[in-house]
Amino acid sequence: MASNSQDLLIIGGVAAGMKAAAKARRESPAMKITVVTDEPYISYAGCGMPYFIGDIIRDSKKLILREPAYFKHMHNIDVLTRHQATVIHTKAKQVKVKNLEKNSDLTLRYDKLIIATGAQPIVPPLPGIFLNNIFTLRTVSDVLRIRACVDSGRVKNAVIVGGGLIGLEMAENLVLRGINVSVIELLGRILPPLDEDMALLVQKHVMEKGVEVITSDGVKSFEGNTSGAVTTVITGKRQLPADMVVLSIGIKPNTNLAQEAGIVTGASRAIKVNERMETNIPGVYAIGDCAENIHLVTGNPAWIPLGSTAAKMGRVAAINATGGNDTFKGVLGTLIVKVFELNVGKVGLSEREAVKEGFEVESAIIPAEDKAHYYPETKDILIKLIADTTTKKLLGAEIIGEGVVDKRIDIIATALTFGATVDQISKLDLAYAPPYAMSMDAIIVAANVLGNKLSGKTVGILPSKVAERHDRGEDFILLDVRTESEYKNGHIKGSKHLPLDKLASRTQELDRSREIIAYCRAGLRAAHAYRILKNAGFYNVKYMDGSILAWPYGLEK
Amino acid sequence: MASNSQDLLIIGGVAAGMKAAAKARRESPAMKITVVTDEPYISYAGCGMPYFIGDIIRDSKKLILREPAYFKHMHNIDVLTRHQATVIHTKAKQVKVKNLEKNSDLTLRYDKLIIATGAQPIVPPLPGIFLNNIFTLRTVSDVLRIRACVDSGRVKNAVIVGGGLIGLEMAENLVLRGINVSVIELLGRILPPLDEDMALLVQKHVMEKGVEVITSDGVKSFEGNTSGAVTTVITGKRQLPADMVVLSIGIKPNTNLAQEAGIVTGASRAIKVNERMETNIPGVYAIGDCAENIHLVTGNPAWIPLGSTAAKMGRVAAINATGGNDTFKGVLGTLIVKVFELNVGKVGLSEREAVKEGFEVESAIIPAEDKAHYYPETKDILIKLIADTTTKKLLGAEIIGEGVVDKRIDIIATALTFGATVDQISKLDLAYAPPYAMSMDAIIVAANVLGNKLSGKTVGILPSKVAERHDRGEDFILLDVRTESEYKNGHIKGSKHLPLDKLASRTQELDRSREIIAYCRAGLRAAHAYRILKNAGFYNVKYMDGSILAWPYGLEK
Repeated sequence: MASNSQDLLIIGGVAAGMKAAAKARRESPAMKITVVTDEPYISYAGCGMPYFIGDIIRDSKKLILREPAYFKHMHNIDVLTRHQATVIHTKAKQVKVKNLEKNSDLTLRYDKLIIATGAQPIVPPLPGIFLNNIFTLRTVSDVLRIRACVDSGRVKNAVIVGGGLIGLEMAENLVLRGINVSVIELLGRILPPLDEDMALLVQKHVMEKGVEVITSDGVKSFEGNTSGAVTTVITGKRQLPADMVVLSIGIKPNTNLAQEAGIVTGASRAIKVNERMETNIPGVYAIGDCAENIHLVTGNPAWIPLGSTAAKMGRVAAINATGGNDTFKGVLGTLIVKVFELNVGKVGLSEREAVKEGFEVESAIIPAEDKAHYYPETKDILIKLIADTTTKKLLGAEIIGEGVVDKRIDIIATALTFGATVDQISKLDLAYAPPYAMSMDAIIVAANVLGNKLSGKTVGILPSKVAERHDRGEDFILLDVRTESEYKNGHIKGSKHLPLDKLASRTQELDRSREIIAYCRAGLRAAHAYRILKNAGFYNVKYMDGSILAWPYGLEK
Repeated sequence: MASNSQDLLIIGGVAAGMKAAAKARRESPAMKITVVTDEPYISYAGCGMPYFIGDIIRDSKKLILREPAYFKHMHNIDVLTRHQATVIHTKAKQVKVKNLEKNSDLTLRYDKLIIATGAQPIVPPLPGIFLNNIFTLRTVSDVLRIRACVDSGRVKNAVIVGGGLIGLEMAENLVLRGINVSVIELLGRILPPLDEDMALLVQKHVMEKGVEVITSDGVKSFEGNTSGAVTTVITGKRQLPADMVVLSIGIKPNTNLAQEAGIVTGASRAIKVNERMETNIPGVYAIGDCAENIHLVTGNPAWIPLGSTAAKMGRVAAINATGGNDTFKGVLGTLIVKVFELNVGKVGLSEREAVKEGFEVESAIIPAEDKAHYYPETKDILIKLIADTTTKKLLGAEIIGEGVVDKRIDIIATALTFGATVDQISKLDLAYAPPYAMSMDAIIVAANVLGNKLSGKTVGILPSKVAERHDRGEDFILLDVRTESEYKNGHIKGSKHLPLDKLASRTQELDRSREIIAYCRAGLRAAHAYRILKNAGFYNVKYMDGSILAWPYGLEK
């Protein structure tokens, strides 16, 4: 068996690399398998790191899943830590490796090569960037340094640069440690992958939890004290005291080594691979955060580096590198993040992304409950669904809330994989019992609401659009159809109040020549008001999606 | 608009009927809509009832979602409670209705008729069946009676007849009220919809929670005291003291009214409908628990009455009865039930059902964790996947455990809807972050394990099959590859111990001519041992699926 006597070399020892190594051994008992990594640690749980800083995960050993000795003993896999691959000779099938401990070079030959060099944090070349206590969070070494800094008890104020997923996880975990946290984000709101309407609601929650969120502002420089530790973050608009800074403005794929060897990168600037994880060089595979994927909704190349994808790519590359045949078709950009009490998830395209990709889009925002409403501990979630008006297929979803979000994200991820229409989603036979779902699950309710919009049965308008038109001074009647006490407790500025149960008998109070946008608390009464007004002959009526529950802006009393 | 002036009559006022009424009103503002029901209550949450008895839901009003007055005021729907439909004249388009309060008859005409007569508990004609405190649980009246009986404080012992979903929910909620509970089931184990291997694990849990579970035994009669209250349940094999009995041996569809009108029932004996919910009589629809469905995995008629399905059917019938066009393709028999600390779910076909349907089946039982293993509060789940060996498509899944089960059931429900292969499931881009999942979600791991079995890479054997062959006295080596201390702490009777890390060097201790079945705690080391033995030239090797975690029988020390 030729394949059994071959040498497999893997560059990179975290999620993708070690998964590939272990799977290759299971596929091929006799192959010589070697992993090289410039890091001192392998097989660690990068995604768990913020929780170690927050002391939710108490023992750093828990983050390191396996030691090199385990792989040697149990799988006969040689793992060389602190060994940096410096040159790949694809013709000679050799990799030059530097032993970082001894500062010596060695050359490893291979028959099959798997590149799993990962990604690295973007560190902007700003004045003061090399001051002490300015961190990135990527490796075990990073997390140990941050944890030591926090454990020192000398961190009163921390600034997180970048309001993405890692930034928010860090914010939460530092707040848990009693630190004053500011998050600074260049965009007008945190959580760039989400649409603004959903992101603003998360932002509101983060601010309620005591985090200072600064948007539309960027870091210009850092200042330090005489011992070289950061003290101040200077932004375009202000100065922030900072005993510690975490940079989380993004990552970039580690592709230099591959590119220098003539391995091609794709449109996303990560290493281009086919479904078998093969690069343009025969026998050379790329996996994990350094490799490109196909976005299953658009069919276009995408770079969405995630640990879950890395593991799957590692498995596929291992099967192919050991003579088998397996494929990985692509990703949906599925993400989930815990942000204090909120669960925040996204899958597929946001509305903004879908429009940018050229789709004709309809969307809906639907508040729902995660369990039967009469069951204790039922909690709210807010679902945004985005669909293609032509094919009626779902394009993506964003879901946030204190209730169960990950389940609904995964249902949609599965549906998107198979190109489901909104109608098909509304008919799914999902599991129902009071402790788990409403009798029509939140996702089904949401699909029904979007279905009504898609078929023109109802006309909704997103809160963000209402606010935009309000700000532009456009003329419309914003109609609050809640009860008197609800209205008095806080309503949207400039709205007119007319409770739903009196609406049918008092339609003469409304000017038929003007556009009417109805809202309530959660959208149900607004949709009812919409129908009452349509039936009464009003022609220019809309209801506001999700109503107050989806309104991220202020209310007045 | 002809359709707007038509009369819609709905027989039945629970989940399907009231959903149809409300949806019909949204579709058609002017239609006259009338609902008749023989019950005093409408629109109630049948599935929540056990939790009201357990006092988890504290207020019976919470179970009743809407009152007739609400439907009249808000939707202009007439709801006639305590009005029993007695005859349907499909030619005259009339329904004869008895006012149960006044004992008078009236005749209602219709243009469109929706039959939502539901189902009723099977009450076996046993001696003593009409004694007091023998209950079924179906209606609001039932639950109020049971709750009053429990609240009286005089129930020390309760017997539940039937170990299905409702029976187990009742068992849990009565235990919560401090009552000694026995469950009696005619089959050899509880939870008939599940395969025996999974059901026995649930049964073990129920017994650990203090419920007496009696299987392979049936009730012969009931005995009572002088005041006519039940005191004793007489079974084929024993006598059980009982201050209260709950019959939950099954339900049957209420089809008499329809059948007498010439409306056809199907193979399942429920009312036959097409995808539009139309019966054989034009203009007459049937929905909810009285109507048949198509099982989406088999394509065959099936009767799997559930509240979640009722709501969807109600919606579709309403759209069609008001001149629209909508379809409901069928169901997957998706179920979820909380049984004390366990979550128990099923979707699609069990292995037993799949074999019965003529599929060539491969299955796997896989223990997994519901979140990242290093995250606090991570809990175990046990997944059984069943696939078609020819098409490699998944046929069904059963999942149990203290961890999150419903999410994985719903992922599989969605995948089954689109005819997913096991390979496709293993590549799903599911949401990953440590608080929500392992980096390869439990479902993906499970699909990978089953994929290995399907492709012949590994040969597994279910615990139930091992036990069966053991009982038959077949010759094989049952090889425990766990550590010494694990082995000493409890192992399967007759097993040989050889820890995994010594296996490769001690294979000469094993007789190559005999079949070897390896097991460990969770299956991973057993699969590893399988590969070591295969590589060492052993030809007749298997590993036990799920190993000790999936072993529902006893252990010895």
